[in-house]
Amino acid sequence: MKDLYEIITSRRDTRHFTTDKVPNEVLEKAIEAGHHAPSVGLTDATRYYVIESVSIKKKIKELFLTYHEKAANATDDEAQKESYLKLKLEAIEEAPIGMVIAYDRSVLDSFTIGTIGSNEAIKFSAVCAAQNIWLSLTEQGYSMGWVSILNYYDFKSILNIPEHIEPLGYFCIGKPATDYGNQPMLQQLHWKEKKTVANVIKVKEIQEVTKTTFTIEKETTFKSEDLVQKLQYKIDHKTKPEGALGLLEKLALQIGLAFKTETPQIQNPHIVVFAADHGIANHGVSAYPQEVTRQMITNFLEGGAAINVFCKQSNIALEIVDAGVNYDFPTNINLINKKVAKGTQSFLQTAAMSYTEMELCFQNGATVVNEIHQKGSNCIGFGEMGIGNTSTASVLMTVLTSFSIEECVGKGTGVTNEKLENKINILSKAIQNYTGSNELEELIAHFGGFEILQMAGGMLQAYQNNMLILVDGFISSVAFLIAYKKKPAIKANTIFCHCSEEKAHKTLLDYLEVEPVLHLNMRLGEGSGCAVAFPIIQSAIGFLNEMASFESSGVSNK
Amino acid sequence: MKDLYEIITSRRDTRHFTTDKVPNEVLEKAIEAGHHAPSVGLTDATRYYVIESVSIKKKIKELFLTYHEKAANATDDEAQKESYLKLKLEAIEEAPIGMVIAYDRSVLDSFTIGTIGSNEAIKFSAVCAAQNIWLSLTEQGYSMGWVSILNYYDFKSILNIPEHIEPLGYFCIGKPATDYGNQPMLQQLHWKEKKTVANVIKVKEIQEVTKTTFTIEKETTFKSEDLVQKLQYKIDHKTKPEGALGLLEKLALQIGLAFKTETPQIQNPHIVVFAADHGIANHGVSAYPQEVTRQMITNFLEGGAAINVFCKQSNIALEIVDAGVNYDFPTNINLINKKVAKGTQSFLQTAAMSYTEMELCFQNGATVVNEIHQKGSNCIGFGEMGIGNTSTASVLMTVLTSFSIEECVGKGTGVTNEKLENKINILSKAIQNYTGSNELEELIAHFGGFEILQMAGGMLQAYQNNMLILVDGFISSVAFLIAYKKKPAIKANTIFCHCSEEKAHKTLLDYLEVEPVLHLNMRLGEGSGCAVAFPIIQSAIGFLNEMASFESSGVSNK
Repeated sequence: MKDLYEIITSRRDTRHFTTDKVPNEVLEKAIEAGHHAPSVGLTDATRYYVIESVSIKKKIKELFLTYHEKAANATDDEAQKESYLKLKLEAIEEAPIGMVIAYDRSVLDSFTIGTIGSNEAIKFSAVCAAQNIWLSLTEQGYSMGWVSILNYYDFKSILNIPEHIEPLGYFCIGKPATDYGNQPMLQQLHWKEKKTVANVIKVKEIQEVTKTTFTIEKETTFKSEDLVQKLQYKIDHKTKPEGALGLLEKLALQIGLAFKTETPQIQNPHIVVFAADHGIANHGVSAYPQEVTRQMITNFLEGGAAINVFCKQSNIALEIVDAGVNYDFPTNINLINKKVAKGTQSFLQTAAMSYTEMELCFQNGATVVNEIHQKGSNCIGFGEMGIGNTSTASVLMTVLTSFSIEECVGKGTGVTNEKLENKINILSKAIQNYTGSNELEELIAHFGGFEILQMAGGMLQAYQNNMLILVDGFISSVAFLIAYKKKPAIKANTIFCHCSEEKAHKTLLDYLEVEPVLHLNMRLGEGSGCAVAFPIIQSAIGFLNEMASFESSGVSNK
Repeated sequence: MKDLYEIITSRRDTRHFTTDKVPNEVLEKAIEAGHHAPSVGLTDATRYYVIESVSIKKKIKELFLTYHEKAANATDDEAQKESYLKLKLEAIEEAPIGMVIAYDRSVLDSFTIGTIGSNEAIKFSAVCAAQNIWLSLTEQGYSMGWVSILNYYDFKSILNIPEHIEPLGYFCIGKPATDYGNQPMLQQLHWKEKKTVANVIKVKEIQEVTKTTFTIEKETTFKSEDLVQKLQYKIDHKTKPEGALGLLEKLALQIGLAFKTETPQIQNPHIVVFAADHGIANHGVSAYPQEVTRQMITNFLEGGAAINVFCKQSNIALEIVDAGVNYDFPTNINLINKKVAKGTQSFLQTAAMSYTEMELCFQNGATVVNEIHQKGSNCIGFGEMGIGNTSTASVLMTVLTSFSIEECVGKGTGVTNEKLENKINILSKAIQNYTGSNELEELIAHFGGFEILQMAGGMLQAYQNNMLILVDGFISSVAFLIAYKKKPAIKANTIFCHCSEEKAHKTLLDYLEVEPVLHLNMRLGEGSGCAVAFPIIQSAIGFLNEMASFESSGVSNK
């Protein structure tokens, strides 16, 4: 009998198996060990899928190969790439047993102990089970290899794994053909050395947390009747019939007043996309899985999203903010880290965030805007990304206005009619479950949305900095609604870039008594409406500054 | 010596500890066990923070209590809430050792094996370490309790944990005061029963993933149905929900078809302003005197008009055509001379022009367009200038459609209500006076305007040259109506840039069954709508050519 220390130190991530079969009792004992791993709140959410079919394994191997190549291309270092491609990183087809260890995130739909700080506890229970299985197999003379180089979307499709079941990876199980010289394979192959000791830090002091509370300064309202008149005269005396440039004339007046000048200029325009995840997304309110939030961030950073194309077209600087995405990003990417938590809680049963987190959102948004302002920018567009955030926005709109939830809900990124009904039901229930007050702060903390509140905080700060605020679609407008409730004067500096196809958007714009620039039936978010409308805003400034007047051109006025 | 099975099944999530100290060697052995857990790509990203300070524990306990209360409020069920609050879910202050097991996500900053499908592998390694530590402590007669009910933002702040280090939770370590009757505490307290067996599913069948494979056929001549499908596929597989770019998607499809390619590009775009005078202007139908036509031409040539500003903004070449202005211009100015006569006759009593003049207009327009096409342009916007030309356009619309004159007349550049009534009376009278046939040529010669017919001729030529045709406002749309009556297929190449405030314009656009790009209440003419809408058209082409697809970016499609 091996002792625990021996088992733990001889456990290997195995990619070389003999052709020996794995007896049923070995696998059963291992799975039992898995079953005795921690299960947060006794949720028993861990799932095991066992695969012996040759054809299924073949299909999974194909999937692996696609991503393996993608991984190889992730390094610029040709030598590293070559040595990477030589590594054997799986034994999908050789290992007699394949297993998927997964967890069922639908347990989060009801009250679950231990998931309020982070719902990852469910996932962690499944990982503990994997480790127990690994140790049990090792003890019994077998081994396992963990394959994570997979496109999980396709992987789940092939195995017909339901949307709410999330796999940790594919596990190859069999009798090991080698112990790699009693060390990790990667070390044996000189890819890397495993450190000889663990990284342990003794914490001896409490860090005093100094929180700057976010306050709105007293208004220094700029009301210059004089400037209104001067601007209007200038606009009316351009060589065109009075009012012939329609909305462009209104925009020119507004921008001149916002910048307090007859010759306004946009300097270093920015669009900021605030991204976050939403607990409510676990309830099937969106057409897309939550992981799309982080995938889209990668897409933004790689320049492949719509907003990248549109910003590039108009020389708008683009910044992406992680306001609370349920994912760990590397630290060396061009992402502004303002993560409050890995997604909000589902407001179906509890508050989306704490009061502290809500305050932090406003502070974070303000910080982001201030940093952009310090770069000499006087114009900022607010966009967002977050699977499930039309649900959050709809609920916020309902509780902050008098519109019914039905009037505030739309199809988001494109749910079916059936899902739409479900969405309305869930959101109605969430509102019924709410027992708090009607105070703005309590409402927005409860129904929240980290990106939405950071946008609201950013807008308020932009107003304080005398910047021009560009609002994108429905979600961005709900963020504006919050900012507007806190400071109605903010409207003066705000341009509503388009009217989205999300049906509640028109209702909200009418409620705010504002006129959007574009009507293109867009419903993408990401700040795309701001970027597409930006040239129109420049046209408004352009005619004001550059057109001839009747006086200067000698054209007859009426 | 306990065997693995015993250790695994007797491991407990412990919340009751004795006051016994944890010897250093016990903790060290446990951490060593953790260190021997899997480490994806040998990243050694797991970190251990050890806490013995009473004051730090107190602070963490406070944090726990905040979230504990929040968790309790997550249930509606009062009995459940009460029984939840009775549960002891931590031993932060009692356990002699506190530990934070965490991972350093900055390892993702460089090439890391096994993280391409999901970077969670880093986190999973740390969880495996936690499980190893748990088992090692259990074997040594100690135990651990995992506390995850925390606000991680505050938690990290208190412990001064760097931003890129992510904790799995707070772990209480000590000698257990109980084994909870050899079962999970939550089961002993009848909160929930742990399932006796694991949830295992045998996967026997592959789910056939139906993906339409997309292959580009090697064809030199495109069949148009093929191209429609290819373009639509390309549009639908960009990283955005289907249809989310609204009108931009329709424009992209249209432009691709017009240019017969999946990668359309606008080359050397032009806007041409056709200017002419109108005999009908002598009857007081306009707000401005006729001389404004030639004054505005000077303004165009000097760069002071709105169209100059907007063309400059978007790098559009601008050409001005004298199609029949009642003025003698010098010959050494940058004006294309296609003057048919010095203004039309008033159609109140007679034909505006002869049949020959009408034909000459079509020819002139075609010549202008051909010359621009020969400069390598594939996109041309049609604008106009001519005092009185909304009257001409209104009458043409009436006689070429079934709409009444009242439906076709608007305020033009801004006549008063009184003048509007006069305008309707005069135009009605002109129509009553007409005794000719209903033949298109006779109608347009009788009611025509030199600039309007030259535009129609230019549009027809642009279509023949496979150019993209941009239509401006009401008058430009009436010119299109004439071209369309002659060749309905022209619609495929035509983009209607905006819906003017001239009220008949909407009626005409609806009649033509077309969707304008902008709704800015503009009513200026000069091609200004084409120039202001041009960036939107470029956005449509931009997303088609430059955005990533779901396939290329790895973003999950629905």
